[in-house]
Amino acid sequence: MRIQIINGPNLNLLGQREPEIYGELCFEDFLTALRNEFASDEIDFYQSNVEGEIINRMQEVDGKCDGIILNAGGYTHTSVAIHDCIRAISVPVIEVHISNIYGREEYRRQSLLSPVCYGVICGFGLNSYKLAIHALRA
Amino acid sequence: MRIQIINGPNLNLLGQREPEIYGELCFEDFLTALRNEFASDEIDFYQSNVEGEIINRMQEVDGKCDGIILNAGGYTHTSVAIHDCIRAISVPVIEVHISNIYGREEYRRQSLLSPVCYGVICGFGLNSYKLAIHALRA
Amino acid sequence: MRIQIINGPNLNLLGQREPEIYGELCFEDFLTALRNEFASDEIDFYQSNVEGEIINRMQEVDGKCDGIILNAGGYTHTSVAIHDCIRAISVPVIEVHISNIYGREEYRRQSLLSPVCYGVICGFGLNSYKLAIHALRA
Amino acid sequence: MRIQIINGPNLNLLGQREPEIYGELCFEDFLTALRNEFASDEIDFYQSNVEGEIINRMQEVDGKCDGIILNAGGYTHTSVAIHDCIRAISVPVIEVHISNIYGREEYRRQSLLSPVCYGVICGFGLNSYKLAIHALRA
Amino acid sequence: MRIQIINGPNLNLLGQREPEIYGELCFEDFLTALRNEFASDEIDFYQSNVEGEIINRMQEVDGKCDGIILNAGGYTHTSVAIHDCIRAISVPVIEVHISNIYGREEYRRQSLLSPVCYGVICGFGLNSYKLAIHALRA
Amino acid sequence: MRIQIINGPNLNLLGQREPEIYGELCFEDFLTALRNEFASDEIDFYQSNVEGEIINRMQEVDGKCDGIILNAGGYTHTSVAIHDCIRAISVPVIEVHISNIYGREEYRRQSLLSPVCYGVICGFGLNSYKLAIHALRA
Amino acid sequence: MRIQIINGPNLNLLGQREPEIYGELCFEDFLTALRNEFASDEIDFYQSNVEGEIINRMQEVDGKCDGIILNAGGYTHTSVAIHDCIRAISVPVIEVHISNIYGREEYRRQSLLSPVCYGVICGFGLNSYKLAIHALRA
Amino acid sequence: MRIQIINGPNLNLLGQREPEIYGELCFEDFLTALRNEFASDEIDFYQSNVEGEIINRMQEVDGKCDGIILNAGGYTHTSVAIHDCIRAISVPVIEVHISNIYGREEYRRQSLLSPVCYGVICGFGLNSYKLAIHALRA
Amino acid sequence: MRIQIINGPNLNLLGQREPEIYGELCFEDFLTALRNEFASDEIDFYQSNVEGEIINRMQEVDGKCDGIILNAGGYTHTSVAIHDCIRAISVPVIEVHISNIYGREEYRRQSLLSPVCYGVICGFGLNSYKLAIHALRA
Amino acid sequence: MRIQIINGPNLNLLGQREPEIYGELCFEDFLTALRNEFASDEIDFYQSNVEGEIINRMQEVDGKCDGIILNAGGYTHTSVAIHDCIRAISVPVIEVHISNIYGREEYRRQSLLSPVCYGVICGFGLNSYKLAIHALRA
Amino acid sequence: MRIQIINGPNLNLLGQREPEIYGELCFEDFLTALRNEFASDEIDFYQSNVEGEIINRMQEVDGKCDGIILNAGGYTHTSVAIHDCIRAISVPVIEVHISNIYGREEYRRQSLLSPVCYGVICGFGLNSYKLAIHALRA
Amino acid sequence: MRIQIINGPNLNLLGQREPEIYGELCFEDFLTALRNEFASDEIDFYQSNVEGEIINRMQEVDGKCDGIILNAGGYTHTSVAIHDCIRAISVPVIEVHISNIYGREEYRRQSLLSPVCYGVICGFGLNSYKLAIHALRA
Repeated sequence: MRIQIINGPNLNLLGQREPEIYGELCFEDFLTALRNEFASDEIDFYQSNVEGEIINRMQEVDGKCDGIILNAGGYTHTSVAIHDCIRAISVPVIEVHISNIYGREEYRRQSLLSPVCYGVICGFGLNSYKLAIHALRA
Repeated sequence: MRIQIINGPNLNLLGQREPEIYGELCFEDFLTALRNEFASDEIDFYQSNVEGEIINRMQEVDGKCDGIILNAGGYTHTSVAIHDCIRAISVPVIEVHISNIYGREEYRRQSLLSPVCYGVICGFGLNSYKLAIHALRA
Repeated sequence: MRIQIINGPNLNLLGQREPEIYGELCFEDFLTALRNEFASDEIDFYQSNVEGEIINRMQEVDGKCDGIILNAGGYTHTSVAIHDCIRAISVPVIEVHISNIYGREEYRRQSLLSPVCYGVICGFGLNSYKLAIHALRA
Repeated sequence: MRIQIINGPNLNLLGQREPEIYGELCFEDFLTALRNEFASDEIDFYQSNVEGEIINRMQEVDGKCDGIILNAGGYTHTSVAIHDCIRAISVPVIEVHISNIYGREEYRRQSLLSPVCYGVICGFGLNSYKLAIHALRA
Repeated sequence: MRIQIINGPNLNLLGQREPEIYGELCFEDFLTALRNEFASDEIDFYQSNVEGEIINRMQEVDGKCDGIILNAGGYTHTSVAIHDCIRAISVPVIEVHISNIYGREEYRRQSLLSPVCYGVICGFGLNSYKLAIHALRA
Repeated sequence: MRIQIINGPNLNLLGQREPEIYGELCFEDFLTALRNEFASDEIDFYQSNVEGEIINRMQEVDGKCDGIILNAGGYTHTSVAIHDCIRAISVPVIEVHISNIYGREEYRRQSLLSPVCYGVICGFGLNSYKLAIHALRA
Repeated sequence: MRIQIINGPNLNLLGQREPEIYGELCFEDFLTALRNEFASDEIDFYQSNVEGEIINRMQEVDGKCDGIILNAGGYTHTSVAIHDCIRAISVPVIEVHISNIYGREEYRRQSLLSPVCYGVICGFGLNSYKLAIHALRA
Repeated sequence: MRIQIINGPNLNLLGQREPEIYGELCFEDFLTALRNEFASDEIDFYQSNVEGEIINRMQEVDGKCDGIILNAGGYTHTSVAIHDCIRAISVPVIEVHISNIYGREEYRRQSLLSPVCYGVICGFGLNSYKLAIHALRA
Repeated sequence: MRIQIINGPNLNLLGQREPEIYGELCFEDFLTALRNEFASDEIDFYQSNVEGEIINRMQEVDGKCDGIILNAGGYTHTSVAIHDCIRAISVPVIEVHISNIYGREEYRRQSLLSPVCYGVICGFGLNSYKLAIHALRA
Repeated sequence: MRIQIINGPNLNLLGQREPEIYGELCFEDFLTALRNEFASDEIDFYQSNVEGEIINRMQEVDGKCDGIILNAGGYTHTSVAIHDCIRAISVPVIEVHISNIYGREEYRRQSLLSPVCYGVICGFGLNSYKLAIHALRA
Repeated sequence: MRIQIINGPNLNLLGQREPEIYGELCFEDFLTALRNEFASDEIDFYQSNVEGEIINRMQEVDGKCDGIILNAGGYTHTSVAIHDCIRAISVPVIEVHISNIYGREEYRRQSLLSPVCYGVICGFGLNSYKLAIHALRA
Repeated sequence: MRIQIINGPNLNLLGQREPEIYGELCFEDFLTALRNEFASDEIDFYQSNVEGEIINRMQEVDGKCDGIILNAGGYTHTSVAIHDCIRAISVPVIEVHISNIYGREEYRRQSLLSPVCYGVICGFGLNSYKLAIHALRA
């Protein structure tokens, strides 16, 4: 399977940003482990702090991969444009979050993306990405 | 691992209830397949339509299993009492939903349980339960 | 016709509870009169104060009667689980209320059940049950 | 009994307007059948698209009939003036609706009239009018 | 001075409608007394239950009288159209109410008309009309 | 094409009412110019301050014209009955406004009619009507 | 008649404060004119910027005057304590405002005092006080 | 005096559940001490996790005891049915809470039961029950 | 123990103000009885209608008494400043109310003070003060 | 005339994205036809998925074209920054939408841009762009 | 320059009240340092717990100083009367806060005073007062 | 000190954009003056209309400067992503605004950034930036 992981704003700081919430592992190290564990899958990775570039990427890989695993960070709660993009493309998108967003601040409990994603996985740390791959395979 | 699956109200009708949303498989058949796939784990199952009996069960298995996979059905959106129970016990609880509740009616988009669960998995059909077992194992 | 009447919490106190709102007749006496008036119909009656037991009953009689007349009492305004049950079963459910709930306290004016019931009859005292039987017959 | 039926805006289009919601029978045909069924009652009928004319009519028939069956159509949800009229007159008013308004759009779920009507019957198609006559007779 | 009094829906029932709120005097009798007390003024009176006819009247008398005393009844709380009319005409409009609307039901506490009226007088029974004439004279 | 223009309350005052918002041209003069410009079309015009008469007119011309251009004035924001009428008839209705209603008072930013109109044109002064004719022709 | 006028915070600045809203006359000059016009009445005047002192005064004059004319200024919109005081005393209180508060900022459109006052007069400039005296006399 | 103490969901876990909020004493031990202190009173105790069973109990002891001390736990904030029960029975009910619910999560600050209870005591730990007995005695 | 009782606005009218809600006993008589019953305690009493003077008093007695029993009257629902004062001082404050505020008007159901008080006692008439002394002693 | 058309996020997918809502024509083909129809005008076109690039573009063409036709896609409902840009530049901006946004999801019914645009045209498919050019010319 | 600093309720407790939020320095010591640093300016200081006395002071110094630095404490969030005072006087008022009120409780995030102050400085501890003097000088 | 000033969308138009609100000085000229005044500090400046590029910049300068002065323009009110960035980096961020945002449109009164900034300075024109430098130095 060809899988596209897309991380949104500030997730490039993983490992150094609020480690009591997001853990101490940086995403690149995690990615290496992930690719080892799912060696038969092709896992592509993209990160951007720019809302529109996330949309660009999603449009580009549409039809060229079997699933998108999306952690849109802060745009999760504000972006109608990414919502529209998920509806506009045909590849299934799985929304993941590292922390349990429902147990945090009020405005972080609502995701504009969940209604149009295939499914949602949240709260399992970086493990959420692994579960999403399991979900795509099933 | 000893795993307790708890299903809430109307989930005993799975397979015959609104199959375009919940699928055509009844839960008992799915359970057999699940136990086969995770043969090394001990998977206990309980279903009740009564809010308080779900609380009773969660209190009873606390300390006697390694994780609870909870699909509280309609009580997900209204039960402060189950919320309190999850906080009161020490075993981790994973909230699962068969359908993507965030893409449905407004009142079904908010879960009173998510803030105190370990994590949330939703939208993958009965596969959500499988992903929850993967999550408990990790 | 086989008709199932289901009364929810505190309706067993009818005749003694706030008689200026609910009248002075107890439900058993009314039931006798009702069965006399509709002698050709089979009228079954069930009352419970427990939300989940009302769901149990509705699931049990599904397919075994021609209609359910439901006065869910206080659960009318809070129960997503009974709402789900009405959607899950196939027998038509008519919601009745003894008092005019729209003319009472604010929180009592909204019914979570009405959207999935076949129809609603409210405000005619115990006569509401009679009208519901007329409605089922038509 | 002398009974006044009053229909509000757009109900003169019954039979041709959104038949999947309102049915295919026009009201005049239904009225003929109704008068045959309740031959001993005198059933008067009035329809207007003008809010104030509905009020005029209700004031005129006050004291001259035994009950008003009112389907105020779109004014149900916006008219404080009709609400005031129902309070001001002394003949009992029964609110009826052809469709189950609680299962439709959000703004159509609240009736400004229900709190001051004697009772409410809704969701039974044109049969709602028949049930209202039964209710007036009881 | 030429003064136009305009009464809205159901105010033609004054004296018989909810006398504990609106008093027992009918408006015609009060009008006679009013004309006697302010004999040097020309007091014209108009009542309609139809929102649009109230607008018609206000447009007609614009420029032909020195002030309008308006009790719009139930339209007070719902009519953007009358609000627009008051803005569109140039004669000053004084809003009066017989009862203290702020001490009544929640929806009756907000007037859509007050923001564009010259002033508001409410709660003094039929005396409110007299005070409005005093106000116009000053 | 046969086109029906319908203007709602207070639009008969165009030219004299708040000219800084609505302009100084009266509608009759504009209408003459419009008919000259679209000489091959038959343009019928109707104005009323009465909500129900607007509904009457829309029902009457249904099936007898190719499109309705509706400026419902103050009823735009409050009339469920006109909303229902637009749904009930089959001729396409285009909503127009002279001023940009979205840049004005809060309560004037929401139109109850837009959801059921074919399209909306607003903010171009009397030119909005011309654009609506262009739209109907396309 | 013995009449107590009570002015709340910042009304001592009348004549110099925002004259485009409140006029250019200072209250003392107006008071002299008022006492001349109603020479047979005894008009007492009190002003304070302190919420609790307004309450003190109202309690003191209770039973010693025939009516209180209250312009509570900014406390109109926030003071449950003055609301309670009006309910606790037995002399009638008339609420007056110089400007039309309903045509101003949103938070200034709701008065906590109106529901318990005898009546409300607002928008007639300092003339509002005169009308209140007329009202007390009637 | 005969006193009925009723504890709702999860209060059977007292002593082990979130001791920083609820303390470390289990309720049975506290009950023994309570009975010793009020030896002349008959203190009955009942606990259930099931909403409907709490209603059952309240109905059963109505007329057979002098007062109910109710800590409804999580149902405090969601149960219209228990609210109805308190209204339906005639024995006085005192609502108690161990923690100060007003200083906790937003949804825990509103009690549906308080409006129909005789009085409310909250925030004094298990001592709240003692104060309630004092209150019943007075 | 040294106990400071502080009463807020209008509570000096106790005994004459709305006796159907607040009873017919004036506070001074009650205070005498209270001091007799708790003869070993030193009970100081202060009343003011001025919000800031209540704050002054609370600051003065801080560190000089063992507990404050506060009935802040109308300021209960509006005073962030008294809320801040309770947080700023170190002596425990118990909030009491004579009537059951939760069963009264909507705006009277929320207390800004409860979240920072030690505990709340309400609804037991003047007895609420006695219970508060019991609570302070425990 | 020099006209700048600016399309926002996901509008580059026109023709393939949800064709039941947005039609099957891709924008480039439509643009060719548009330029043919308005051959005397210079029509420039820009599309971006990035909110800030849309702002960049609007700033660049300010003073260099006679009007901007803006379809901001998903940013319509969330972008205060584009709102500010429209206010900051001096060229008139016309807001267009292909679908009738008022008849779609709740959050899509409010445009942050409309209050500062010259006018709004919505619901006429790609024809909305044509009408906007007509509007600019008038 | 002559500068008036006004502190509202509980700010006299600075140094002892919640030092983790407000610091350990008492205001008098800070004032001495401030006067030393700005020796060429005349700095007057006033503190009161009484809302109306703050208004009194602001009115008194109006025209007699070059600027007011106001920390209204808890009245910041509730006082329409102080809001009115700032509008009524002509000297510029700068609002300061010691802590970052936007990062604290929800109700503390909204200031009724900010809209009418010249500017706002918050979150810099006692240094906020220094910055305000810099601002007044510029 | 090394100080990074970051300006958000449309602030590059300063001097030409709505000068009655934002003044007539362009930012580059102001910057020159600022660097002269604070010659011993190193002041870096960055502006972008793109939300994500502001995040990029903040991440880049984290650890390389002593403070960020951020005027996020329109993103102030909508950007959870910039909010997250401020939390994720360790350099203190001071929020500044040229105009008093609290005195403007409703949606412009709430800043998503304030809760996580070190402090807020607003309303002093370009002088707000100077005060922020003073604040960083203290």
